[in-house]
Amino acid sequence: MPTWGQYLEEHQPRFMEELLDFLRIPSISAISAHAGDVQQAAEWVAARVMAAGMEHVQILPTGGHPVVYADWLHAPGKPTVLIYGHFDVQPVDPLNLWTKPPFEPDVRDGKVYARGASDDKGNMLVPILAVEAMLKGAGALPVNLKFFFEGQEEIGSPQLGEFIPQHKELLACDMVLSSDGGQWSETQPLILVGLRGGCGVQITVKAARADLHSGMYGGMVQNPIHALAAIIASMHDADGHISVAGFYDDVLPLSELDRERIAKVPYDESAEIESLEVPALFGEAGYTAREQTWGRPTLEVNGIWGGFQSEGIKTVLPSEAHAKITCRLVADQDPSRVVECLLAHVKANTPPGVTATVTPLAFRAFPYLVPEEEPGNAAVREVLVEMYGKEPFYVRSGGSIPVCSLFQRHLGAYTANFAFGIEDEGAHSPDEFFRLSSFRKGQGAYCTLLERLGR
Amino acid sequence: MPTWGQYLEEHQPRFMEELLDFLRIPSISAISAHAGDVQQAAEWVAARVMAAGMEHVQILPTGGHPVVYADWLHAPGKPTVLIYGHFDVQPVDPLNLWTKPPFEPDVRDGKVYARGASDDKGNMLVPILAVEAMLKGAGALPVNLKFFFEGQEEIGSPQLGEFIPQHKELLACDMVLSSDGGQWSETQPLILVGLRGGCGVQITVKAARADLHSGMYGGMVQNPIHALAAIIASMHDADGHISVAGFYDDVLPLSELDRERIAKVPYDESAEIESLEVPALFGEAGYTAREQTWGRPTLEVNGIWGGFQSEGIKTVLPSEAHAKITCRLVADQDPSRVVECLLAHVKANTPPGVTATVTPLAFRAFPYLVPEEEPGNAAVREVLVEMYGKEPFYVRSGGSIPVCSLFQRHLGAYTANFAFGIEDEGAHSPDEFFRLSSFRKGQGAYCTLLERLGR
Repeated sequence: MPTWGQYLEEHQPRFMEELLDFLRIPSISAISAHAGDVQQAAEWVAARVMAAGMEHVQILPTGGHPVVYADWLHAPGKPTVLIYGHFDVQPVDPLNLWTKPPFEPDVRDGKVYARGASDDKGNMLVPILAVEAMLKGAGALPVNLKFFFEGQEEIGSPQLGEFIPQHKELLACDMVLSSDGGQWSETQPLILVGLRGGCGVQITVKAARADLHSGMYGGMVQNPIHALAAIIASMHDADGHISVAGFYDDVLPLSELDRERIAKVPYDESAEIESLEVPALFGEAGYTAREQTWGRPTLEVNGIWGGFQSEGIKTVLPSEAHAKITCRLVADQDPSRVVECLLAHVKANTPPGVTATVTPLAFRAFPYLVPEEEPGNAAVREVLVEMYGKEPFYVRSGGSIPVCSLFQRHLGAYTANFAFGIEDEGAHSPDEFFRLSSFRKGQGAYCTLLERLGR
Repeated sequence: MPTWGQYLEEHQPRFMEELLDFLRIPSISAISAHAGDVQQAAEWVAARVMAAGMEHVQILPTGGHPVVYADWLHAPGKPTVLIYGHFDVQPVDPLNLWTKPPFEPDVRDGKVYARGASDDKGNMLVPILAVEAMLKGAGALPVNLKFFFEGQEEIGSPQLGEFIPQHKELLACDMVLSSDGGQWSETQPLILVGLRGGCGVQITVKAARADLHSGMYGGMVQNPIHALAAIIASMHDADGHISVAGFYDDVLPLSELDRERIAKVPYDESAEIESLEVPALFGEAGYTAREQTWGRPTLEVNGIWGGFQSEGIKTVLPSEAHAKITCRLVADQDPSRVVECLLAHVKANTPPGVTATVTPLAFRAFPYLVPEEEPGNAAVREVLVEMYGKEPFYVRSGGSIPVCSLFQRHLGAYTANFAFGIEDEGAHSPDEFFRLSSFRKGQGAYCTLLERLGR
């Protein structure tokens, strides 16, 4: 029988074709017309983990997009490891900025370009292939293993808040490895010790029953765009602090040690400015850019619209204006409590002459902080030091992986990031890609890590 | 020879047939497929004014839809009066809301129903018939007269801004009478003493070169929607005053007499609130709703857009945000000067971390205000008082009729509204109609007014 290393080497051409197949499924969880594609992706994943040799493969309903579960539990006395990932992807607009269509994966320069290539289909296929190599090679895994792949990560995992506590027995494990994440660079590993949480609301401001002639009515009827702009402007002060009452109440301040650790991670502000093509960085006064994104909460308008948006002129006084807002939260903020603060703020800051309605969005994630000496991360550190020949950076992420706090709260298990995406790969942006070298390297790394966890 | 009164009485059946003929021409200026119909209407008008006895009849090209000119200049020592109107009409959609086809005029209940019946074909035929009655009756007019009828009013008279100054000699006159307008009601006359002007800009705010992940970058990169909201919010204070430096510099304050005249025009605020379905009216503090729309300038965002606007959630930090803004201006504001103020304001109020670009829009109309003692309006007032047995309301309009300020600026002539449409006649809407009583009454009224002007 081949070793897992031989098996991996031999089957790379097939694995590559499978990756392209997986990337062709437009499993955009945010757009309801794509619900069937998310389901199709779940079926593709279920078939793929079954082919890898996993057992008890199930597509489980959640009330929203489904999850895929599978296990292999034949290592008595060994720890139980749950591997997490997601098969849904972000929307693709603006489509015109893509070099090739986002669901026609294109391999060039050692990279595969497609929506979801890095986030997270490429990364989540990696441990499936590693498990296949061990099961078809040695015929067994060194640990008890569960796969738990979801189809709603990109919309904030709205149903998992109920699903995970309802399936505590099924998902019970000693630790979680997440395939949704990455390393610092091609040569520098990282250990993820914190994630921001999140929540969101949509604001609708209404004035008159229909659009009005701006000559006949302009000046005597409140313009809902003006009202919405005033509401949005009231949410930050000129120094970038959030002005919503109560918003910061539960925020743990950054300790001196936190700030020292963050400062150890290299950061080139002028390179960032150049790469983003912004005139300057801008954020909450009193914090470095890293501290702003890793250790401080945000309130961000993700989209705004109202009135006439086409070419030319239409002298209309619009009847409605809309905004979508999401917040990134840090420990110990509670997303529900922050939504309450937003509701109260909009109520208190709505100008006269309009009505404003605030609807909570289905995005509610607790922030997440891992103790540094946590055993999963310790094992991951050892493997990374072997692979890269250097110590990992201990970093936080400004993003949210809601499921990490759910695993922690309901399964008592911390999540160790073990994935090989790199920040320049355009997750959520046009021309997303994944390095084929990461795809290959990750497979062996997962085998090594599982062996170490089974020792 | 008959008096003009006898002539009018005798020829009403023919005039009625001619009105129906004129209404059958689908001269929709906004739809390029109807350009030939606009031309046909110009030819119909040219033939009709020639038949009325006018001289030097010409269809003149403008680069767009044509104008029709004619004159009768045999009253030495008498004033020269230019009568204005337009033979183009609005589009007809939604067609299914018309009782009869819009270009098959239908007479019922003392009204003629057709597109253009009131705005402006019925109204503009009236002075042609009055002139015919005087020329065929007395054989002469009491004043020197010019007709100037255009075919592009419903699309904002785009070519007249060049045409009128280029034809100053041809159009030279002491006053203009406009057949495009109307009276307050069947029993209440009005005098139009002001129109608002306008100008506009589009604002584009840019941050990073592409949309960013709000988790990875949120907190350290300025959000262009926040920046745009701050810019928009900076343009008004909480009392509805415009906060753009220099904006009010040239605004003529409303005099006590202005305010008295405006207050004399009946206005039911609670009926307005109910009809608009707004929680309350809102406008610049210190002014009534009528004063706000008739006598004060506005700055109105007509549309705004940026970032994610579809169903669901996309936690994006957008790269761009956009707004279209138009202002309504009052005397003596200069649209170009106001655009300069907007440019300077945006420059001074752009938050850090973004760039803002301001592009002027192709909307530039001077405001228009008639001195109360202007001779044309004084003569019109006398005729209206005789006809209706009561003083007219002195009203302004919040809208813009660019040609009035063009006549004033280039010919030095004020325009007196002398027309008999009524607001309920559905100009721009389905089932537009014109009262036959107004059609008949207007003909004699024009004869009376011309006699008075010739005295």
